[in-house]
Amino acid sequence: MGRIHNFGAGPAALPLPVLQRAQAELLDFAGTGMSIMEMSHRSKTFEGVIQGAEANLRKILGISNDYTVLFLQGGASLQFAMLPLNLLGAGQTADIVHTGAWAEKAVKEAKTIGNVNVAWDGKAEKYMRMPEQSELKLTPGAAYLHVTSNETIGGVQFKNFPTSEAPVIVDMSSDIMCRQLDFSKFAGVYAGAQKNIGPSGLALVILRKDLAERVGEKVPAILKYKTHMPEPSLYHTPNTWGIYIVKLVTEWVESVGGLSKLQAINEEKAKTLYDTLDSSAFWKPCAHKSSRSIMNVTWRLPSEDLENKFAKEATAAGLDGLKGHRSVGGIRASIYNAVSLESVKALVGFMKEFEKKNG
Amino acid sequence: MGRIHNFGAGPAALPLPVLQRAQAELLDFAGTGMSIMEMSHRSKTFEGVIQGAEANLRKILGISNDYTVLFLQGGASLQFAMLPLNLLGAGQTADIVHTGAWAEKAVKEAKTIGNVNVAWDGKAEKYMRMPEQSELKLTPGAAYLHVTSNETIGGVQFKNFPTSEAPVIVDMSSDIMCRQLDFSKFAGVYAGAQKNIGPSGLALVILRKDLAERVGEKVPAILKYKTHMPEPSLYHTPNTWGIYIVKLVTEWVESVGGLSKLQAINEEKAKTLYDTLDSSAFWKPCAHKSSRSIMNVTWRLPSEDLENKFAKEATAAGLDGLKGHRSVGGIRASIYNAVSLESVKALVGFMKEFEKKNG
Repeated sequence: MGRIHNFGAGPAALPLPVLQRAQAELLDFAGTGMSIMEMSHRSKTFEGVIQGAEANLRKILGISNDYTVLFLQGGASLQFAMLPLNLLGAGQTADIVHTGAWAEKAVKEAKTIGNVNVAWDGKAEKYMRMPEQSELKLTPGAAYLHVTSNETIGGVQFKNFPTSEAPVIVDMSSDIMCRQLDFSKFAGVYAGAQKNIGPSGLALVILRKDLAERVGEKVPAILKYKTHMPEPSLYHTPNTWGIYIVKLVTEWVESVGGLSKLQAINEEKAKTLYDTLDSSAFWKPCAHKSSRSIMNVTWRLPSEDLENKFAKEATAAGLDGLKGHRSVGGIRASIYNAVSLESVKALVGFMKEFEKKNG
Repeated sequence: MGRIHNFGAGPAALPLPVLQRAQAELLDFAGTGMSIMEMSHRSKTFEGVIQGAEANLRKILGISNDYTVLFLQGGASLQFAMLPLNLLGAGQTADIVHTGAWAEKAVKEAKTIGNVNVAWDGKAEKYMRMPEQSELKLTPGAAYLHVTSNETIGGVQFKNFPTSEAPVIVDMSSDIMCRQLDFSKFAGVYAGAQKNIGPSGLALVILRKDLAERVGEKVPAILKYKTHMPEPSLYHTPNTWGIYIVKLVTEWVESVGGLSKLQAINEEKAKTLYDTLDSSAFWKPCAHKSSRSIMNVTWRLPSEDLENKFAKEATAAGLDGLKGHRSVGGIRASIYNAVSLESVKALVGFMKEFEKKNG
């Protein structure tokens, strides 16, 4: 067997030590004589896992006790609904910044539930940059401002987050834990796990506790944040395997030196790739320089034929997942936390060879 | 390491060959050079997994093409809300049979959404038997009749399912795939995966396709069954690991001889245990004989002290998960599909020794 270089957009690469550990203890977790999958979510052993995962996340991300930390099911897509169901009262308006396909989903779902003001729409520039604060049209008295931290399709990422008098809620699905941020600026952050923190089937929800009280009586219990808070994430059976993998991933983050070190590696990976893209007119990077994502790097080649050839030959060379999203085409390299600098260097090496032959 | 005999109520035992296979291919699934967890849910490889899981389930359970088969997140608990959100129109009534703690959750959640008629309530008999058809008070023109196939806390199971002029929807979380049933009698069946078909974080939803059209416009897209049907379970990123394990479990079911063989084994396991319980006044089985579950067997001992001693000594002897649910106490042995006859025989052997010493 040979592990490939995985540049897939998600579900995405996981750290090899995480996979090896999960493999080693799959039949017998911590001497219990059973798999982590076979264990009660209310057992002492699993309590250690879920509390450990939460404690590690709080430490790595810098989350105070004013926030609840929940592991919910349904990914970010369920959060697109839960968020307005919980925070958007009758007659109130949600401000949403429309930065690409993910923000669009947040807009669409919120509109089934209440009033939405699109505070900015990047459509005219094909969602290839993030807005400045001065471009946002915010609603006085808005219920909240919703922002998508990173758009995987365009490959754009906020460097400076929008601010508002209303609570700022961030969909951080594709770049959570990739860089150091002051979480106290956010009232809430949520993230599907399958890019940077674990497998699919899980969403991390970090929410200022007082906001959970806003929810109306008519919302089903399972969809209320406050239902899940008293015994965090144990109102019903959570995705125990997913939470276990998140714990292993957070341990891996600590083992490589924490978030400051990880950010430095991520920036070096991104720079290595963008420098190559900027070095020749053969490559046409998509995102505006001010908004270049350090997680999803997107570019075009001189023709679609060459793009197809590039993706195909890359896959044959053990560099997989490089086809751009089907809605936009082109090439995309997702270089999440678990994608190593070595993998990026292998990609850059392949690119240089490809340019020589086809440039 | 020694694997223990796992009688836990859920997340519960998985077949050892399933765990071994998952372990063997954890770093490299089917020669792709990546873990199944690291793979796009839209890749050809994963398509084979999800379509295989669906095909196996259709074959094993006997599900026609009139039904959609979905792998959703949120467990049965989210179904308690999705079901009325999709099927219970304004002014309509849902008939729900209240047979225990799980039915109670279905009742409570449905009441936040619409009108509920409790068609029967087993409270007077402490939920220790299932009702006869003649005892049900059904609503003419009801939107549907909701039934819980098996209650894990009482250890009661329907032998003959209720019928109604309305569509019959069954929560089969704790006994799906334990016996042969005529699925055409049901309009819908759902099941959290973590007892008989896989790990937690996943619900199987089998629904007659025409019923999915009932849903109103105001329901968020993610909560509409029909959103998930066109590309089954791929509207958003599903729990890919969970679906993979379900596929392995269904392959294991086929490998042991299919559902008829599995049912025979399950009945032998249950008989072995109930025969022991009936053999001496030392044991006091809880469930009414007419409703005895072949998945969760519940009983009392002469005193709570003896019950605690029993559970503790059993754990020490490698027989785990035997404490009754905290709400009722006593002893409970969950003997789901993956619990072998050998494990049940080990339990019965331990019981006979325990009775000799303490009887």
